[in-house]
Amino acid sequence: MTIFSKIIAGEIPSYKIAGNDKFYAFLDIFPTVKGHVLVIPKLEIDKFFDLPDDYLSELLIFAKPIAKAIEKAFPCDRCGIEVIGLEVPHAHMHLLPINSSDDLNFTRKKLQLSAEELVEVQQQILAAM
Amino acid sequence: MTIFSKIIAGEIPSYKIAGNDKFYAFLDIFPTVKGHVLVIPKLEIDKFFDLPDDYLSELLIFAKPIAKAIEKAFPCDRCGIEVIGLEVPHAHMHLLPINSSDDLNFTRKKLQLSAEELVEVQQQILAAM
Repeated sequence: MTIFSKIIAGEIPSYKIAGNDKFYAFLDIFPTVKGHVLVIPKLEIDKFFDLPDDYLSELLIFAKPIAKAIEKAFPCDRCGIEVIGLEVPHAHMHLLPINSSDDLNFTRKKLQLSAEELVEVQQQILAAM
Repeated sequence: MTIFSKIIAGEIPSYKIAGNDKFYAFLDIFPTVKGHVLVIPKLEIDKFFDLPDDYLSELLIFAKPIAKAIEKAFPCDRCGIEVIGLEVPHAHMHLLPINSSDDLNFTRKKLQLSAEELVEVQQQILAAM
């Protein structure tokens, strides 16, 4: 069972942003920038493009209102996307507010946010949805 | 008219990978790694998440066989995705073979490939599709 499946099952707590029958969105607790959200399928599949077609066709539709909320809640040019997937063997998409391509540079140092700051980020996104 | 619309219209040449009524895929001529493909909608919309829902729902389905071919054609862990969009005001998705998150680091120096090398990359992807 991946760490993401444990988050979906509620065994590991998360800062929930949205969920439906196929997907779950929550804050990345090691964000590159404030407003960094992870979208995951409720299906334990490692590689993103191995997801079934109905997941691939619904994923961006599920992500859209979250991305729009991120764009509203944080000072940014737009919401960017990154799919890497080299660390957790459970497909996931990063959504984050960007002002430069360096905001999508995952080799740079991650932010250290307190629980209070993460709750604040969560509330900012939820308020904008 | 964006540079991408000119590419779609054939006014600017490109190394075509695939196309249908909604999307066009071609080589990024300033690749981060060999096998770097751009997928664009045949619709001049700046921000990715402003694309109509039918485009958002069909985009990853269109990208899937290209991503699978990239994974087959180049030594990599998997095909990664990046959507930035700060340079050309026409929504686009980067697909590229990755072995580390640094392969998706768009702040690093781009490869300088000759026309011969680009044709070779194009042929490798097409042969794997």
